[in-house]
Amino acid sequence: MADRFHSISPIDYRYWDEEIARYLSEGAFIQYKLQVEFALIQTLAQLELCPPGVEKEVAQAITEITPDEVFEEEGKVKHDIRALVNCIRKRVSDKAKPFVHMTATSCDISDTANAARFREATMHVLVPRLLELQKVLIAIALREADSVQIGRTHGQHAVPITFGFAIGEYVARLGESIKKLQELADHLPGKFAGAVGAYNASSLLIDDPEEFEKEVLFRLKLRPASHSTQIVVPEPMMRLLSEVGIVGGVMANLSRDMRHLQRTEISEVEEEFSEEQVGSSTMPHKRNPIAFENIESLWKVLVGRLSTVYFDQVSEHQRDLTGSASQRTYGEIIGYASYMTKRLKETMEKLCINHENLKRNLELSKGAVLAEPLYILLAHFGYPDAHEKVRQLALKAKQEDKPLSEVVEQDEEIRPYLEKMTSEQRNIISHPAAYTGLAAQKARKVAEYWKNALGL
Amino acid sequence: MADRFHSISPIDYRYWDEEIARYLSEGAFIQYKLQVEFALIQTLAQLELCPPGVEKEVAQAITEITPDEVFEEEGKVKHDIRALVNCIRKRVSDKAKPFVHMTATSCDISDTANAARFREATMHVLVPRLLELQKVLIAIALREADSVQIGRTHGQHAVPITFGFAIGEYVARLGESIKKLQELADHLPGKFAGAVGAYNASSLLIDDPEEFEKEVLFRLKLRPASHSTQIVVPEPMMRLLSEVGIVGGVMANLSRDMRHLQRTEISEVEEEFSEEQVGSSTMPHKRNPIAFENIESLWKVLVGRLSTVYFDQVSEHQRDLTGSASQRTYGEIIGYASYMTKRLKETMEKLCINHENLKRNLELSKGAVLAEPLYILLAHFGYPDAHEKVRQLALKAKQEDKPLSEVVEQDEEIRPYLEKMTSEQRNIISHPAAYTGLAAQKARKVAEYWKNALGL
Amino acid sequence: MADRFHSISPIDYRYWDEEIARYLSEGAFIQYKLQVEFALIQTLAQLELCPPGVEKEVAQAITEITPDEVFEEEGKVKHDIRALVNCIRKRVSDKAKPFVHMTATSCDISDTANAARFREATMHVLVPRLLELQKVLIAIALREADSVQIGRTHGQHAVPITFGFAIGEYVARLGESIKKLQELADHLPGKFAGAVGAYNASSLLIDDPEEFEKEVLFRLKLRPASHSTQIVVPEPMMRLLSEVGIVGGVMANLSRDMRHLQRTEISEVEEEFSEEQVGSSTMPHKRNPIAFENIESLWKVLVGRLSTVYFDQVSEHQRDLTGSASQRTYGEIIGYASYMTKRLKETMEKLCINHENLKRNLELSKGAVLAEPLYILLAHFGYPDAHEKVRQLALKAKQEDKPLSEVVEQDEEIRPYLEKMTSEQRNIISHPAAYTGLAAQKARKVAEYWKNALGL
Amino acid sequence: MADRFHSISPIDYRYWDEEIARYLSEGAFIQYKLQVEFALIQTLAQLELCPPGVEKEVAQAITEITPDEVFEEEGKVKHDIRALVNCIRKRVSDKAKPFVHMTATSCDISDTANAARFREATMHVLVPRLLELQKVLIAIALREADSVQIGRTHGQHAVPITFGFAIGEYVARLGESIKKLQELADHLPGKFAGAVGAYNASSLLIDDPEEFEKEVLFRLKLRPASHSTQIVVPEPMMRLLSEVGIVGGVMANLSRDMRHLQRTEISEVEEEFSEEQVGSSTMPHKRNPIAFENIESLWKVLVGRLSTVYFDQVSEHQRDLTGSASQRTYGEIIGYASYMTKRLKETMEKLCINHENLKRNLELSKGAVLAEPLYILLAHFGYPDAHEKVRQLALKAKQEDKPLSEVVEQDEEIRPYLEKMTSEQRNIISHPAAYTGLAAQKARKVAEYWKNALGL
Repeated sequence: MADRFHSISPIDYRYWDEEIARYLSEGAFIQYKLQVEFALIQTLAQLELCPPGVEKEVAQAITEITPDEVFEEEGKVKHDIRALVNCIRKRVSDKAKPFVHMTATSCDISDTANAARFREATMHVLVPRLLELQKVLIAIALREADSVQIGRTHGQHAVPITFGFAIGEYVARLGESIKKLQELADHLPGKFAGAVGAYNASSLLIDDPEEFEKEVLFRLKLRPASHSTQIVVPEPMMRLLSEVGIVGGVMANLSRDMRHLQRTEISEVEEEFSEEQVGSSTMPHKRNPIAFENIESLWKVLVGRLSTVYFDQVSEHQRDLTGSASQRTYGEIIGYASYMTKRLKETMEKLCINHENLKRNLELSKGAVLAEPLYILLAHFGYPDAHEKVRQLALKAKQEDKPLSEVVEQDEEIRPYLEKMTSEQRNIISHPAAYTGLAAQKARKVAEYWKNALGL
Repeated sequence: MADRFHSISPIDYRYWDEEIARYLSEGAFIQYKLQVEFALIQTLAQLELCPPGVEKEVAQAITEITPDEVFEEEGKVKHDIRALVNCIRKRVSDKAKPFVHMTATSCDISDTANAARFREATMHVLVPRLLELQKVLIAIALREADSVQIGRTHGQHAVPITFGFAIGEYVARLGESIKKLQELADHLPGKFAGAVGAYNASSLLIDDPEEFEKEVLFRLKLRPASHSTQIVVPEPMMRLLSEVGIVGGVMANLSRDMRHLQRTEISEVEEEFSEEQVGSSTMPHKRNPIAFENIESLWKVLVGRLSTVYFDQVSEHQRDLTGSASQRTYGEIIGYASYMTKRLKETMEKLCINHENLKRNLELSKGAVLAEPLYILLAHFGYPDAHEKVRQLALKAKQEDKPLSEVVEQDEEIRPYLEKMTSEQRNIISHPAAYTGLAAQKARKVAEYWKNALGL
Repeated sequence: MADRFHSISPIDYRYWDEEIARYLSEGAFIQYKLQVEFALIQTLAQLELCPPGVEKEVAQAITEITPDEVFEEEGKVKHDIRALVNCIRKRVSDKAKPFVHMTATSCDISDTANAARFREATMHVLVPRLLELQKVLIAIALREADSVQIGRTHGQHAVPITFGFAIGEYVARLGESIKKLQELADHLPGKFAGAVGAYNASSLLIDDPEEFEKEVLFRLKLRPASHSTQIVVPEPMMRLLSEVGIVGGVMANLSRDMRHLQRTEISEVEEEFSEEQVGSSTMPHKRNPIAFENIESLWKVLVGRLSTVYFDQVSEHQRDLTGSASQRTYGEIIGYASYMTKRLKETMEKLCINHENLKRNLELSKGAVLAEPLYILLAHFGYPDAHEKVRQLALKAKQEDKPLSEVVEQDEEIRPYLEKMTSEQRNIISHPAAYTGLAAQKARKVAEYWKNALGL
Repeated sequence: MADRFHSISPIDYRYWDEEIARYLSEGAFIQYKLQVEFALIQTLAQLELCPPGVEKEVAQAITEITPDEVFEEEGKVKHDIRALVNCIRKRVSDKAKPFVHMTATSCDISDTANAARFREATMHVLVPRLLELQKVLIAIALREADSVQIGRTHGQHAVPITFGFAIGEYVARLGESIKKLQELADHLPGKFAGAVGAYNASSLLIDDPEEFEKEVLFRLKLRPASHSTQIVVPEPMMRLLSEVGIVGGVMANLSRDMRHLQRTEISEVEEEFSEEQVGSSTMPHKRNPIAFENIESLWKVLVGRLSTVYFDQVSEHQRDLTGSASQRTYGEIIGYASYMTKRLKETMEKLCINHENLKRNLELSKGAVLAEPLYILLAHFGYPDAHEKVRQLALKAKQEDKPLSEVVEQDEEIRPYLEKMTSEQRNIISHPAAYTGLAAQKARKVAEYWKNALGL
């Protein structure tokens, strides 16, 4: 392949970035596998199971090996790990040769390398980006804690909230997911238990093969699972990738909300639009929520991938290889999620909020949204069938195109109940902006909680 | 519908059971919703927000309400929760009426009822059944800890393990999943935060609406999420259902292994077959692994359902209803998993293990499986290119149809290395049954660990 | 199970209907299987392969058999088809007994019964309902062919269309899908090829077993596949169910559009709301697009199910049973789709279109939507960089909150080009309602085409 | 990106090939879009809607444009099609400029380019490869039409078939799918209907915009859909990609069968293994079915992708962009399928069939597989409860470890019925190899049919 334009997957041209590739490219995978082979040698050296000098030889060898060379060798032996091992072996002395890959099965190397790189891609790329996004959301939640907005259920005006409260929802959901991702990435197990997981080979030479496994993995910041076959148990990786899908869904939901708030008729927010940017190749006036749409679109990519992950769970007996090719696509899941996060952060950072339109929309339904407090207070003051009564009044207001409060005032039956209300209560039932409950307070509380919990 | 044969879903005739229906049927859902309405009244009473006697009236009312009645009312008002509320209200005094459902939005009731019943279905049906299954598996792992079996990778003979070790894998995977299920079910949040999650309505009447929410939920053994909209955040339920899918995959994997071990040519295990049972309507000799096949089949049902769950995550603004109908199918996920567990437990309990065939198969490949220890030991004793050497010998043995050990003995080049080996090592490279590494030990360790960890 | 409230799946209480159950319930399945057994006997009789009288005996027997009886027998023999056969056999004379199920394997019966009932459920329920829906859409497309509406891309005002044109899109998409469903349902193959598909058993007794197979299937309005194993090839069913998913997506797309057009700020359409209907248990003013939301929700159920269908495609060798339990859920796919269709038809039939708001929204963006024709005409009359010029003007109009046409008129540079335009062209660039292209014409054309093509 | 090892998706390093990239890479996409822009100019020229010479200018321009240049321009204008248009425009005279992209909306270009390249990738890569595979399978079916093999259901020995018959199944399934792929690829619609599908822009300048659309598309071997919005209707692409998933499933099923037949205990087939090939990095004796496993694995990738395709179906109003990023991954579906096909063809071509083991396995169950013909013939000759009788005899044979025929001969009750049988019938019930029904005949028939139908 000559350049990126020969790529078929958009993760390799349009959504590719250096930082992700450092962990998740094929080249990176080869590097990680070399590190695992080296951790094995180091452990053998430490336990004096190999002669002095071998460690140094291997350390040197792995710096020299290129992906090209490994692929070329694989072309011959048709086995990726054996190819890698051959590349090391041909660089070291005959004395050192037998210790390269000693007692290891291929999956000891590749599953462990995968655990290491998925752990680090999550901890060093995805999570840091999510924290950056979280910072932006927290700032909005705090800044807009008091900006009254009509709450919407079913796309219909419900009762008021504040914009900060709406963002607070995402702060809370994202916060939980970040915590889960950290835990799950940190618990991806590696393995060094041999061809069927029973330490058959290492038992030949090593007194405590389980302890040996721990040592090798410790050098890679990993731990063993409590039981392995030829492969590491799939569930920890499944849980991590599921959570990546989940955090993608949280971002998609926020994006969905934002792009609807950008609808021409609503116009409460707008993606920043640069001077030179073109909205449409034929409609010069267009301003489209393309970043939000992009994020929602990539979420659908993530979820589709999870089907594959779930169907890969079953591996026959001590393993079959029917999950091997498909597993090679797992890095894309973290790659797409990292891209989405970065893009969403940049978009939210520059989000324009139109406070005038927030207000305009709040007033649009002429106080119909006050039907709820009215019904609650009527009920509280003893009106027997308050919900039905208010439903009738709201209907009437709608039919006569009048503010609800006007219809209410003209209703004889209700008057005595209005008189029982405090002035604050009476204020609420005629001023939508006053009926926001704990919205502002909750926006601040959630923002502060996650600021602390995540050390932002 | 007159009887179960009018059912379209197999969960309602073939795989239905009383115990699951107690939590997950439509009737059960209505009961749970009534319990939530009652918890609200109890809390109002405790805080003296409703007059004495109301609690008792409502307590009585909810015992009388039938699903039929609620559905009939829904037919009129086209709203399931309003229908429920009407059914309560028409049974209580005018004095009590206003307090029924006071400040609640529909989802306060239904999302909370769902959290409660999914929590209980998991804790009282699925997890107990999984523990029963786990007990059976632990018993097999211990009993068969020393029964040598050939390990298989890619369907090919690899190196030996023991049958108990193979089952130990599932003990470990199941154990982890049970623990996760317990945690996740125990953390399903409820909510009582009103129409858009900002406690708008409850703020009108109650000093500390968040505290009030906690009280109501506490009565149902639930806690609030840190932020709600009209609905509870979807992620905790997604995580629970994902884990149900995962535990289904663990069972499917075990079933897949078992049914292949039952292949005519392998015959290491057999599902118990009752006296009168028919294997095929046309082939009177057939003994099919139908329980294992059934479990694998239902796993595919589970995983398909997860796609729906993941796509339901996005709900617009303070909620839309596009997840409502699909959510009604979530109970089936726990229902199918519970059925699978019960069936797998019964099947494993009566599993016939054919020890003769274990032995026969182990010896089938004439010691070719000893290529690994041979290569490791040769390498250990300094043979420079041991893997390639042994690959050649194995090829030769295969071509000449001889035991590998015979070919090895006749090889001049290798002899000096053989002489360096201990007698134990020499024993291993000619006796497959001796080359099981830590298999037996690990089977016991894993079994004992999970016995304790799960209190079995 | 005592009543429908013990059901776990909503397809068996909330979305169940008699008409669907006639084909897709467990009881119906048993009836279909009996019909297949009878078609076998009829064919044997016709070929004089069984004595006179047997046909009559079996005809009588199958009228008497109840699902309950079959399930009870299955409880004993653990085999659904053998149970069915036993129920027939015990009702007929010893002379007739051997001919019941003669040469058939279980899947000859059950796969053929499935083909027959899925074919008929599609042809007699789903397709007729889709045609009813199509009629309603065609009527709207014709009636509203000239009702100008702003076209929307990315939720932003684009250029104008008509409401009839927007509905025309769905007429076209639905029309194609109906045709496909008819074809696919009509080509579901049955089979009568025995235990492994090689006609082993029937070859023992019958001269031309392939001809025999055709005869049996012909009685059920089916044809054989060109090759079977124990089971019918899965692809024809997969294609049918995929198309059911696709038609569900067309309905979901229409529903999504409609519910957004019902947003408070847009209000171009409204689901009919009955007198007594309640929109929210706490917000008496709410009018929610619940039918549209329901349909979108059930679409997500459909798509999740397709994952299962696709993963069921692989059956080992001449078949395994890992698709058996999951296949029992396929009827639900047609069931849900049929429910969705009925509901969507009822909803569209009563849809309220608010023509005033169509007009209000069209005028909302002050002619910005005319940027496109302006740019096209400028380009046509030779303005070199028309798109960029108009982009600048549109930006200016937006910033100064003026109609685009006003900004245009004041632009010196453009004036000479305006003068070259015809009066019709000039009219278009200042009147959004005139810039609808072929919208009206296309609405009529599509409606008429499908009216004829489907014989409506 | 410097080289392929920076790629994250395996489709861009491990499974990439030149031939696929010619249609499905990003570079290819840009080329196709340029072709569409050119087809527009050609059509304008033909209708004399642009001055002489413009066609030539544009023809020259598009040969010069590189993907790099387009991406750089997109970096500025943030719009992929506008970037492309700018790259053309800056190369042509002021006279020509206005005609570039005239009346087109971006999706007229990109959706049409996608239709063209997906059509050609299917017709020029995937289908030809499938035909190559089909040839190989047909050859095996014919060559092995008479090689008796035990049929297997549920992994258990059922009744005999022939190896050619087993392969014939895949010839039939593959044949149907190839035909569907050809039809579906050939019907992918393009569009040239403008920003919302109503030909608003083209109506300004062109008398019959629908005819104009047809002309443009005709140059690209495409046709319009009967109705478009801003985008082409999604269903034709969904149907094509679904069928690609289906053909992948057929290949996965064949691969699954083959890899199980390669199990050590069965060994009826073996993937060819090259001289230098290594089976395992630690077990020198291993011969793994890695190609079959790889194909099954990639099938799981395909099916996961279909979830995304199905969820992309819904696009709001005249389109939103939430399917845009995800659609960029669709090419991978065809790419993976093409890779799978090539690999499967190469593997099947060199498949080693072990006829001795076919025979050994056939005899393994000591004639138990003859229970079926025995029961059928007993029934035929009037034995009243033949199935139950034979079930008992088979059980007895198994318990006593005797050939079924031996137990049968010793049974007094049966003797009179045996005497009624023809010698051929008696032969069958003691010789499994004789009981293959139409297997051989059917293998040939299916092979010949598809040879003709596909012109092979």
